[in-house]
Amino acid sequence: MYEPELHTDLEEISEDECLQLLDRHKLGRLAIVVDGQPLIFPVNYALSHRVVTFRTAHGTKLANAPGTNVAFEVDDYNASTRVGWSVLVQGVGVDATTALDDVSWMARGGTPHPLAPGVKIHRLAIKPTSITGRRFSLEG
Amino acid sequence: MYEPELHTDLEEISEDECLQLLDRHKLGRLAIVVDGQPLIFPVNYALSHRVVTFRTAHGTKLANAPGTNVAFEVDDYNASTRVGWSVLVQGVGVDATTALDDVSWMARGGTPHPLAPGVKIHRLAIKPTSITGRRFSLEG
Repeated sequence: MYEPELHTDLEEISEDECLQLLDRHKLGRLAIVVDGQPLIFPVNYALSHRVVTFRTAHGTKLANAPGTNVAFEVDDYNASTRVGWSVLVQGVGVDATTALDDVSWMARGGTPHPLAPGVKIHRLAIKPTSITGRRFSLEG
Repeated sequence: MYEPELHTDLEEISEDECLQLLDRHKLGRLAIVVDGQPLIFPVNYALSHRVVTFRTAHGTKLANAPGTNVAFEVDDYNASTRVGWSVLVQGVGVDATTALDDVSWMARGGTPHPLAPGVKIHRLAIKPTSITGRRFSLEG
């Protein structure tokens, strides 16, 4: 059952602004589910239209994300303004390395720059079903 | 199927050092699975022995985490030393607000300080099944 959090002091962020926030950042966290166990990985990503995309090597993400429900989250807190926010993308993983569907084409228009070393010749993307965000502002 | 990532240039971090890293930080990301869809939430946490714990209000996390597989992740990158790491806790969510099991007792020994506003009178904890970490160091 999905209930919204009962925080009356959290402001919802529109999808348009969520996309702007995603576009301005480059590090997020990907959650995938493997044998009923969620796993989280930090990834350097790019946004191409509404599609989050990142590079990866052979491994857990490539073996499990395609065709399954995944989540991707970015957050930030500015200690000066005391404003914090998070954006959550829910969707389905897509192996966009060479596929010819629309999401894969869009994904290959993005240019993620992985920070961690390793040969990452594959490209994963998220076909979004929901892009939501929340912001809080602490009183001075 | 869980395959390790084929990054020969990522160093595994021992559980002892993972716990030290978790103890020194306070913001992580929780993944839970709701109706087959993973979700990710940023949370301010505390570590008490091997138990990650945080406060929460009524809502999605409290309604869905207890008794289910969850993940918790913390990461950091130091631009000066060019060293990045991430720690992943896999385990089972526990509503530790008033329960009398060992994990709940341990959880109530931790003192998480939520940054986001809201009345968070409940306490969730993670009974860990696996605590692993990885580190990379970029060459100068």
